[in-house]
Amino acid sequence: MDAKKQQILLAERPTGTPDKNTFKFVETDVKQPENGEVLIRTLFVSVDPYMRGRMVDAPSYIPPFELHAVIEGGVIGEVVESKSHQLEKGDIVIGGYGWQTYYTAKATEVRKIDKDLAPVSTHLGILGITGLTAYFGLLDIGKPKEGETVVISGAAGAVGSAAGQIAKIKGARVVGIAGSDEKNQYLKEKLQFDETINYKTTSNMKAAIEKACPNGVDVYFDNVGGEISDAVHAYVNKFARIVVCGAISSYNLEGEDIGPRVQTTLIKKSALMQGFTLGDFSDRFSEGSAALAAWLQEGKLTYEETIKEGFEQIPDAFLDLFKGNNIGKLLVKVAEQ
Amino acid sequence: MDAKKQQILLAERPTGTPDKNTFKFVETDVKQPENGEVLIRTLFVSVDPYMRGRMVDAPSYIPPFELHAVIEGGVIGEVVESKSHQLEKGDIVIGGYGWQTYYTAKATEVRKIDKDLAPVSTHLGILGITGLTAYFGLLDIGKPKEGETVVISGAAGAVGSAAGQIAKIKGARVVGIAGSDEKNQYLKEKLQFDETINYKTTSNMKAAIEKACPNGVDVYFDNVGGEISDAVHAYVNKFARIVVCGAISSYNLEGEDIGPRVQTTLIKKSALMQGFTLGDFSDRFSEGSAALAAWLQEGKLTYEETIKEGFEQIPDAFLDLFKGNNIGKLLVKVAEQ
Repeated sequence: MDAKKQQILLAERPTGTPDKNTFKFVETDVKQPENGEVLIRTLFVSVDPYMRGRMVDAPSYIPPFELHAVIEGGVIGEVVESKSHQLEKGDIVIGGYGWQTYYTAKATEVRKIDKDLAPVSTHLGILGITGLTAYFGLLDIGKPKEGETVVISGAAGAVGSAAGQIAKIKGARVVGIAGSDEKNQYLKEKLQFDETINYKTTSNMKAAIEKACPNGVDVYFDNVGGEISDAVHAYVNKFARIVVCGAISSYNLEGEDIGPRVQTTLIKKSALMQGFTLGDFSDRFSEGSAALAAWLQEGKLTYEETIKEGFEQIPDAFLDLFKGNNIGKLLVKVAEQ
Repeated sequence: MDAKKQQILLAERPTGTPDKNTFKFVETDVKQPENGEVLIRTLFVSVDPYMRGRMVDAPSYIPPFELHAVIEGGVIGEVVESKSHQLEKGDIVIGGYGWQTYYTAKATEVRKIDKDLAPVSTHLGILGITGLTAYFGLLDIGKPKEGETVVISGAAGAVGSAAGQIAKIKGARVVGIAGSDEKNQYLKEKLQFDETINYKTTSNMKAAIEKACPNGVDVYFDNVGGEISDAVHAYVNKFARIVVCGAISSYNLEGEDIGPRVQTTLIKKSALMQGFTLGDFSDRFSEGSAALAAWLQEGKLTYEETIKEGFEQIPDAFLDLFKGNNIGKLLVKVAEQ
């Protein structure tokens, strides 16, 4: 095996859109596992929008990344050496050790996954962070009822596409907002969304929302914020629930994120707007994973992955998140299983 | 008795701040009560910020006022003639028939109140709309816990002063924001608020909030919106609850109400922002009134009224609401009991 491993460090904190200078590739020695430890070879690395928030040193729900340290994030790896009773060579594990080709972990730092349930990469997506985020945000905050209209922004992304499908499972009418005709075709044909809006080719978002939602909006699952959300807010119904999952339109803004204040809408509609992060539901992950796995096996839930190949592609893959080109979960495959 | 009565009609829909042209005084005949009806002499008329919303013809939670019709609103009156078994001469009733000196009502249109419980005007304030608004908004949405920090904007108003006192009853630390030193002295000395901020003499609201709330803000009961609320939002804690009760700063704006978008704050803090109107809780009014009356009788709750005298003062009293000069509930006394 390799005696060296590759890592990607946070070289500087970005202002505005991160670029190549944000990241630094380094090579360092692999540490041999000691008692209770395992050596893991990275197979898949997850890139996610929330990581942008950790690149700056501001108070948030999780501490910022350390400067000049490996960028942390979800990873699927294979145990290649074990000095632990809990894991054996060949086990597939999920961990949060981030952007490096190998990692020497305490066995308790990672969790073994069932490699026969579904392709192992799904544990970073539909059965992992993104699927669970959709599950808890939509069901616990959005609470869609049969026949209600649910609007999803960032609908072709990993979280949005899962949220839309779960809303369909619950009997809602689902309208997806995404940034290309190709994505919208996927949403309508493959995921059975009822309506879609291409915000990039729509000159009047308010008119588009009004047309796509003749009965108004009961639940808005928001991944993007900004002007798209301003338009959706104008059509919420009495007692609407706005699930604030992400605001990707604002993450790389250098100035303040300015728009119409929402108070008057919330009062007139007795509407709720609630932010959350997946960690708020950490005591219920097993419930969520079990529900998602069951729907997956019953064929009620499907997913798409955009997989880039090669460790050196990780920064580009991360930057692609903000260009809005990918469908479904964006992953980088670092090594063959 | 008078054969004529005075009425105030909505003469035109205001743009920006209403003025004298918004209202028209007329004199009309008193209609004698028929079977099942009573003739009511108006004693007190309530003026409330929400009425501004009904003056324009836009979708809201209640229909707009009709042009050239009497302006509706809460009224306390005395039955002077009765052709109903349900009410007798001398009974004190509450109704929504609005700005007129007499009204001929079906007995079922009004509700008899207990004139011995507290001064009858309190049924338009602490035991009525404003007290109930504070009660349900604070307890059902804000859910303050002992030791938490509750910030109230418009704190010396009828709703704000009740909300702050209920938060104190629940063991919270209460910070009030109001627009004069006189009001803040009232909040601290009479209502036992822990801290106050005079937003009119404070050059840096964020710094003032930070200083007044060293442990951050757990509940924000918002009556005003605008820049004051932008500043409070910057200090909300994890799992904060923002009760959106009013946005008086925006009611007379002619342009859009623009400010920092709230999505990123809501996500980072897993915070909730919820609008409501009193009607959402109509099936629980008796619960709320009973709790408020009990606190009033136990001396745990107090209230202030600003009472103008004379029917012709009603439009000016209404306009005073937006100047922020009054403490507590603003009423107009139209006749002696």
